[in-house]
Amino acid sequence: MIREGDLVLIWIDRRRKKVVKVERGKTFGSDMGVLKLDEVIGKEYGESVRLSTGVKAFLLKPTLEDVLYSFKRRTQVIYPKDIGIMLVKLGIKPGMKVLEGGTGSGFVTASLAWLGTKVYTFEKRKEHLIIALRNLRWANLIDNVIAVRGSIGEAPEVYGKGYFDAAVIDMGDPWRVVDSVWDALKPGSPVAFWLPTFDQLEKLKEALEGKFLWQESLELWERRIKVEKGATRPEQLGISFTGFWAFARKVS
Amino acid sequence: MIREGDLVLIWIDRRRKKVVKVERGKTFGSDMGVLKLDEVIGKEYGESVRLSTGVKAFLLKPTLEDVLYSFKRRTQVIYPKDIGIMLVKLGIKPGMKVLEGGTGSGFVTASLAWLGTKVYTFEKRKEHLIIALRNLRWANLIDNVIAVRGSIGEAPEVYGKGYFDAAVIDMGDPWRVVDSVWDALKPGSPVAFWLPTFDQLEKLKEALEGKFLWQESLELWERRIKVEKGATRPEQLGISFTGFWAFARKVS
Amino acid sequence: MIREGDLVLIWIDRRRKKVVKVERGKTFGSDMGVLKLDEVIGKEYGESVRLSTGVKAFLLKPTLEDVLYSFKRRTQVIYPKDIGIMLVKLGIKPGMKVLEGGTGSGFVTASLAWLGTKVYTFEKRKEHLIIALRNLRWANLIDNVIAVRGSIGEAPEVYGKGYFDAAVIDMGDPWRVVDSVWDALKPGSPVAFWLPTFDQLEKLKEALEGKFLWQESLELWERRIKVEKGATRPEQLGISFTGFWAFARKVS
Amino acid sequence: MIREGDLVLIWIDRRRKKVVKVERGKTFGSDMGVLKLDEVIGKEYGESVRLSTGVKAFLLKPTLEDVLYSFKRRTQVIYPKDIGIMLVKLGIKPGMKVLEGGTGSGFVTASLAWLGTKVYTFEKRKEHLIIALRNLRWANLIDNVIAVRGSIGEAPEVYGKGYFDAAVIDMGDPWRVVDSVWDALKPGSPVAFWLPTFDQLEKLKEALEGKFLWQESLELWERRIKVEKGATRPEQLGISFTGFWAFARKVS
Repeated sequence: MIREGDLVLIWIDRRRKKVVKVERGKTFGSDMGVLKLDEVIGKEYGESVRLSTGVKAFLLKPTLEDVLYSFKRRTQVIYPKDIGIMLVKLGIKPGMKVLEGGTGSGFVTASLAWLGTKVYTFEKRKEHLIIALRNLRWANLIDNVIAVRGSIGEAPEVYGKGYFDAAVIDMGDPWRVVDSVWDALKPGSPVAFWLPTFDQLEKLKEALEGKFLWQESLELWERRIKVEKGATRPEQLGISFTGFWAFARKVS
Repeated sequence: MIREGDLVLIWIDRRRKKVVKVERGKTFGSDMGVLKLDEVIGKEYGESVRLSTGVKAFLLKPTLEDVLYSFKRRTQVIYPKDIGIMLVKLGIKPGMKVLEGGTGSGFVTASLAWLGTKVYTFEKRKEHLIIALRNLRWANLIDNVIAVRGSIGEAPEVYGKGYFDAAVIDMGDPWRVVDSVWDALKPGSPVAFWLPTFDQLEKLKEALEGKFLWQESLELWERRIKVEKGATRPEQLGISFTGFWAFARKVS
Repeated sequence: MIREGDLVLIWIDRRRKKVVKVERGKTFGSDMGVLKLDEVIGKEYGESVRLSTGVKAFLLKPTLEDVLYSFKRRTQVIYPKDIGIMLVKLGIKPGMKVLEGGTGSGFVTASLAWLGTKVYTFEKRKEHLIIALRNLRWANLIDNVIAVRGSIGEAPEVYGKGYFDAAVIDMGDPWRVVDSVWDALKPGSPVAFWLPTFDQLEKLKEALEGKFLWQESLELWERRIKVEKGATRPEQLGISFTGFWAFARKVS
Repeated sequence: MIREGDLVLIWIDRRRKKVVKVERGKTFGSDMGVLKLDEVIGKEYGESVRLSTGVKAFLLKPTLEDVLYSFKRRTQVIYPKDIGIMLVKLGIKPGMKVLEGGTGSGFVTASLAWLGTKVYTFEKRKEHLIIALRNLRWANLIDNVIAVRGSIGEAPEVYGKGYFDAAVIDMGDPWRVVDSVWDALKPGSPVAFWLPTFDQLEKLKEALEGKFLWQESLELWERRIKVEKGATRPEQLGISFTGFWAFARKVS
């Protein structure tokens, strides 16, 4: 049953869907009509309602992807495909303590918190941190997050050496924090670096030498399929490139 | 500290790495030398040891990917990239009750269990189920798994209607179980179907009509990058295609 | 030296470039200024001129790609990457007699004519044929083209059986013309079919059975690279899918 | 009709196919049986013959691709997809004078010659040039080729400045020959550079600055489709990366 404070995905059609937080007195508006959120309280997920125009909308329980796509953003985002492979490659699991360098808009932070880890995230730019924290609070994920406005270089001092089980770094100059990340991680722990250019991959690999085992670098490409009886084919437009992951492991 | 029964990734180099379960009296063998697992007990993750030949090997804490790649398999597997995006798209989180149709070699089962969900998996083929269960027990993930030898069609009867938070279906004829999956899921819940051909996508979409909202179908392509100072370039050989995901949501 | 009637690529920058036909009294207009084409006559290719605003523009000899991108179009086009591989796979060479089914906007027709083949193209839709012929005349390629408004089914009757060295078919229902294409081609000759959906591939392959050897079906993906000192990376947006080629050979 | 000296593609099945030169007294051998080439003389293209074992084989007229795949090679090759787009982007047409730097095994040389251009190719390494020339002679394409053992730097001296209509450069250090290529080309002419790494793209772009207009850099990806009634899907293994093209235009 949907209660006040819950997130609901209002699905009108595949292009018109939005996650809202259910609050009394608030209204959801779209080009297809409006919906008073009071009406949503007490409904079951999966039920449909009528907008002011009579148009039907479904009330769905949001997935992680739905939540991420509803975040406010001021930075380039990391896509579900890229977050997904990072989770598997790092072996993220509930209860892990994860260090994050570069909170950005909080996409990775929210994903880690969603999975029940404890996220310690560092961000120097105040305006980004404010947006990220608003996103996390809105998504009811803030309890799993410790956010620090400052440099990830402070992490080993503040939390002690060898404190973290894994790390995700999304910064423009990750080679500058390699030593701090090494100090902060438990021995043998994995780290993922998100990078947009080839040059950064080279600089990073050089900086990791001798402290981390280089595991691999990769990129993912996503293509949607338009499924239609007798006329199925790939979508014609898409995103060609998002960024590269580099994965490594701390060794003594 | 590594104890008996723990999993350890023995990393000799990027091509020679294997997850072993630490048991007294057992030996790890490779073309670069052998290692008595007794020696591993009491070491810290991240430390290195010497094989019988003097060759150095690192002892690392296995990630989910490491564990999956060490599974025995008799079926086509689902790759980390494909598991990753499914986790994000379904919004998998600890404590969820997830229905799985088609255990296969247990790759998806293990991934869901790793993330702290309760997995209810159905598999008709006895020999597959045996392998999957061995894999899961070996990986210390069996406690989160309820495995049934039989058809997923029994799920709503056994567990009651509207019991599951999400479902993952990897079967050759998923359109035959659409009604059972619908019955078994809570309203509004997401389901992912893994399919290798276009024809199956069309048949599935038709079968879902009126019971599930069709969300999207997609495929991912992974390309590794060979990072080398002044000579970075994509790897020349790779896997061109693994399969398609189709995502949908149960509606009333 | 550029003369009246020649095509010239006016290149202002990478986004502002256009092929024009040099005619006295005409003017080239852009958001960066205008250019009287009289001024272009007598200039050398490779020289630069000044637009009315003082902005510099280069006068280049158009390539086939430049010409194609300047065509008027009313149909979906075939891209340079797709035309290119077809030329190599069919072994197109000067003097060949090539049968084309579906003139569309004339992209393939122009490419074949550019390479000195004799193109016999069939198009049922009058309005498409008019546009294609205008494009071909504008590009000074019309002399190599025999265009027929009608069905490719008439080709063997009109030109005789076994007359053509190769064929390119871009029609919605190519399986209906398989017999005519077979009749029209010399024994052993190659044919290329351009198709947008998987379903069409299946139907086509079935129709070719016993008359043509099925060679292969493929698609190409193009990704541009943004080259910038220290910041080189793939372009983020692109075209994910254009269509499939199927290649076959007539056998007795 | 097939005559002595002609090339014939002997097609047993999709994996067993080979271009042979028809010579009296010679024999074609395969794991499916042998064929005396005397028997082929006088047959028509498209006809079938029986190998010594009774297995059927088709006699087909080779396309450019067939010929290229039958070349001896000692260098990395350029694939049909990559040759194809280069032809369209450069606007190759019969009668053009094309400068080639780096003959390699002669794949590009043969493609240009096939299309009726006059190719002037430079190669420093004797052993490569010998193989390339053998390939070209075997393919009856040698008449359109002028091959020089030496540096492309000599081209403007030998042939005069502004002599060539287009250029294709496949060398490890193309930035060193940028000035010579500039001298050798007619103003406004296009040039294509084939490069395997990102670093080379950056160096090249820098070297072209001020002499050539940078047009674009791109890569192509090819994926084959396995077409089968009701089970069509992409091939699972493939080539992930071959190389990059960079295209530019000489300007004054």
